[in-house]
Amino acid sequence: MALLPPAQTAELVEFACHLSDAAAAEILPLFRAGLTVENKGAKDYDPVTEADRAAEDAIRTLIARRFPDHGIFGEEYGRSEGSAPFVWVIDPIDGTRAFVCGLPVWSTLIGLLHEGRPVIGVMNQPFVGERFVAGPEQAYMETARGRTELAARGTDTLSAAIVSTTTSDLYTAPRQAAALSALRHKTRMIRYGTDAYAYALLAAGHIDIALDVAMAPYDIVALIPLIERAGGVVTTWDGEPADQGGDIVASASPALHAQVLEVLKGQS
Amino acid sequence: MALLPPAQTAELVEFACHLSDAAAAEILPLFRAGLTVENKGAKDYDPVTEADRAAEDAIRTLIARRFPDHGIFGEEYGRSEGSAPFVWVIDPIDGTRAFVCGLPVWSTLIGLLHEGRPVIGVMNQPFVGERFVAGPEQAYMETARGRTELAARGTDTLSAAIVSTTTSDLYTAPRQAAALSALRHKTRMIRYGTDAYAYALLAAGHIDIALDVAMAPYDIVALIPLIERAGGVVTTWDGEPADQGGDIVASASPALHAQVLEVLKGQS
Repeated sequence: MALLPPAQTAELVEFACHLSDAAAAEILPLFRAGLTVENKGAKDYDPVTEADRAAEDAIRTLIARRFPDHGIFGEEYGRSEGSAPFVWVIDPIDGTRAFVCGLPVWSTLIGLLHEGRPVIGVMNQPFVGERFVAGPEQAYMETARGRTELAARGTDTLSAAIVSTTTSDLYTAPRQAAALSALRHKTRMIRYGTDAYAYALLAAGHIDIALDVAMAPYDIVALIPLIERAGGVVTTWDGEPADQGGDIVASASPALHAQVLEVLKGQS
Repeated sequence: MALLPPAQTAELVEFACHLSDAAAAEILPLFRAGLTVENKGAKDYDPVTEADRAAEDAIRTLIARRFPDHGIFGEEYGRSEGSAPFVWVIDPIDGTRAFVCGLPVWSTLIGLLHEGRPVIGVMNQPFVGERFVAGPEQAYMETARGRTELAARGTDTLSAAIVSTTTSDLYTAPRQAAALSALRHKTRMIRYGTDAYAYALLAAGHIDIALDVAMAPYDIVALIPLIERAGGVVTTWDGEPADQGGDIVASASPALHAQVLEVLKGQS
């Protein structure tokens, strides 16, 4: 992969933050406002809101204006091809269930692939007022009080690890259910209801293992640079690159990740 | 029960908010600060932090100074009897797992019993910057942007209801597990990882059913006035008063609560 020139990187990181602000301007007026929630999925309930669509519209318009040759892959409107080696991978509202419930733990995810590799990632929670940002070389959190560098805490034993996942109800395959149960029993504690926040908080040094099943690329691409730049590791449960989605797991250190993959493998 | 004079009520509501601010001053510097977490429980992991204890110390000191004859019942230091008909029931950090993970959905709960009945309740989340407040006649949310009156949304059918609970892992008794499964299948969706926020958001009109098992009095007393003043109902799963804790359920309307209790009864 060709390295990006630093000036171009800085411009792209700034633009990614700008996109997340534009999304926030569409989303915040509708948060806790009594939305019309549609049922997008036929079998499982998958909340989609006006906010989700309005935010993706705003993001796509800005990208088309500034970088008309970039590709876009978004949760709401799918893929738009571009001629440049850049593809924006976006989820306007990750954690739509949290959003619908009024919980301030949804977020906007903005990722950028360069030649297929995740290089920039932003996770923004504008109601709380914090944004997690990663470029090719650094990762930081920013709030009204300033910037803090992100560093995973390097936990290297399962028994000391804090685990998080969004909901055990999605672990329907026997391997998935067995894996979650095994991790629960080998670790210090587990927390549910975390969505993308879990991965950002892993990068920030508060959670040691985050895992979810059946993730889409737009659920994880933005989080990969955050986790990796902070010293964490993120792959599929089989140890493959995470950028195509699937059953995904992130760990606070390479040593811990190796142990986690062993536990997940043992359940197949 | 003797009614409280309005002037005394206003003073007590203001004092309850003051207590939650004093707790926040102790807690916020330790949130996401890399705490030493002790393992309080012998069998199950129950995180307790320095923040929890420092906040309860601060609250107890303020109550003893202003209302030395009031009783206190707190999560960290238990019961202190008083000669007056008032007892403060407090949980400095509800949602300690959320707190330990760095998730901004923990809260400080301050309840006041008068002659054994919950009359005032405060749920404060100072990192997000929102406080849910209930006195004997009204309930409101306050943020830097002002006050909003709380009203549950009055959902009256199970199939339209959004359910929340903190973790299915605690539903260990067969009746509990069967009840949660039955509710999951009869309702629109379920969200995990909610702690006290679920009950505050039910009062605010975003969640229709909130339930948890094995709650302590300090987990629920502060939330009872919030739910009731907003038009919701909260009882044990058997329909008894909620203020002693146990397996608790709250609903957004009396009609919905009757249906929920039927489902819970059907699993015994």
